[in-house]
Amino acid sequence: MTWRFALMIEPAASDDSRTDFSDTFTVVDPAAPALSVGELSTQRGDGIFESIGVVDGHAQEVIPHLERLAHSAGLCDLPAPHRLQWQQAVARAAAECPPGESVIKLILSRGIEHGPAPTAWVTATEAADFRAARTTGIRVVTLDRGLDSGAPDRAPWLLLGAKTLSYAVNMAAIREARRRGADDAIFVSSDGIVLEGPTSSVILRTGDRFATPAPGAGILHGTTQLSLFTRLEELGFETAYDSIPAARLQRVDAAWLVSSVRLAAPIRSIDDRPLAVDASLTADLNDYLLSPRD
Amino acid sequence: MTWRFALMIEPAASDDSRTDFSDTFTVVDPAAPALSVGELSTQRGDGIFESIGVVDGHAQEVIPHLERLAHSAGLCDLPAPHRLQWQQAVARAAAECPPGESVIKLILSRGIEHGPAPTAWVTATEAADFRAARTTGIRVVTLDRGLDSGAPDRAPWLLLGAKTLSYAVNMAAIREARRRGADDAIFVSSDGIVLEGPTSSVILRTGDRFATPAPGAGILHGTTQLSLFTRLEELGFETAYDSIPAARLQRVDAAWLVSSVRLAAPIRSIDDRPLAVDASLTADLNDYLLSPRD
Repeated sequence: MTWRFALMIEPAASDDSRTDFSDTFTVVDPAAPALSVGELSTQRGDGIFESIGVVDGHAQEVIPHLERLAHSAGLCDLPAPHRLQWQQAVARAAAECPPGESVIKLILSRGIEHGPAPTAWVTATEAADFRAARTTGIRVVTLDRGLDSGAPDRAPWLLLGAKTLSYAVNMAAIREARRRGADDAIFVSSDGIVLEGPTSSVILRTGDRFATPAPGAGILHGTTQLSLFTRLEELGFETAYDSIPAARLQRVDAAWLVSSVRLAAPIRSIDDRPLAVDASLTADLNDYLLSPRD
Repeated sequence: MTWRFALMIEPAASDDSRTDFSDTFTVVDPAAPALSVGELSTQRGDGIFESIGVVDGHAQEVIPHLERLAHSAGLCDLPAPHRLQWQQAVARAAAECPPGESVIKLILSRGIEHGPAPTAWVTATEAADFRAARTTGIRVVTLDRGLDSGAPDRAPWLLLGAKTLSYAVNMAAIREARRRGADDAIFVSSDGIVLEGPTSSVILRTGDRFATPAPGAGILHGTTQLSLFTRLEELGFETAYDSIPAARLQRVDAAWLVSSVRLAAPIRSIDDRPLAVDASLTADLNDYLLSPRD
């Protein structure tokens, strides 16, 4: 039986000056009904989320996640999340997490249809066991995202930089990757620029240079990628945000998909082309990601 | 207070040979919690839906809606909905509808994360009052959908022909239209082909010819558009599925956005260019759409 915890949040206005929000939290049974059928999160995927890794009760990089939540809220015309309130909700959920790895999800939904306020909640769940993905690595395929790389600037209503609940395409891409005998996917723009994984960021190594697609291209700015760049710089490597043509994927020396819970998964093949896994560097990166970080 | 009704459905396997599914339905309080926080509809917009118009207790065109639900399920790798079970669920909800206009929503979600089965439910709600939209008409703006018209064939994982719960972009497009002083939007592909409205189909009139974008281009095949074409043919008009360049929007004689609940909304301006509303034809079309149809 998977361990779970859930907390409903009564969202505070962003100028609420309270310092203790505990009476805006209601612990609920995560398996019991908690949301009504009128919820716009469920009817239209209309809301935003964050997934935060938790290691031995320590929630990792809470502030960068809350900053991204606020960024997503802005793009989606949702009320700004109250930073301190969410921070306290995360702390409350983290305090429930047992030793080992867990994942805390933050969800801010537009609320009940025609209702007065957004709905918000936090869940904590035991993380899946990703040890094999972190060591043996994953096979990926490239998949066309349909959008050209100019779309995000041209059409902000496509919400391309927001982490919305409308993830059906992301999930379909992972199913398509599995149908092709792979584990995961890398999205490529219709004009051939590397974007991101459906639930991860892409990091590519060429010699001692590590590059990731520039977040300006409408992809999510990965919190784990940001953190890993700090670590790579500590190790003396060069890091860069690039516009990366898909053809370069066939020439890199190594590659990873990185995300908050699976952490750094080395890629062992891209579109059936084998890629070497640097076991010791990958272990270093995952050790770093598993150490307490704020 | 808006009138509402909700029914949870225990989805039957597609080969279930029962003829009475009433014991798979559970009436729930539509305002009370009914869904758990682990629901993938709510976490990832991972599921499909249909909205069916109800007039004086008669659910309109149930079979075409159930056929589209099945089509969406196929595209999303969801188990095929049991036709008779859903038909009975719709009938049960329709029997609750008071005189006047209502809307029945069918939702099939991938279910609880890591759970054994999809979650399914039906709601019925009083329809909004769309009389002004149906007579005075609506102002629309064209919005770039970011995708080129080849994307649906090239990349089926984009789920472009499926009516998924991942509607955040559709909702953002309507907000963008309102920011521009309009009521609704028409999506145009990045290569300049007219697609559909965020929650409707587009019908364009030039002389006595009525055209709508071909559903092959990855747009939803509108049940209301299909029905209206039948009516237009009865009235002696020519109907056609075309690949329609956006420039043609500036030359049409009349245009409508059509959908199951708002019905035929005549367009009175496109990107600030005024368009004449044919009041008598529009009234005929809406009278037809408000008459009982199966």
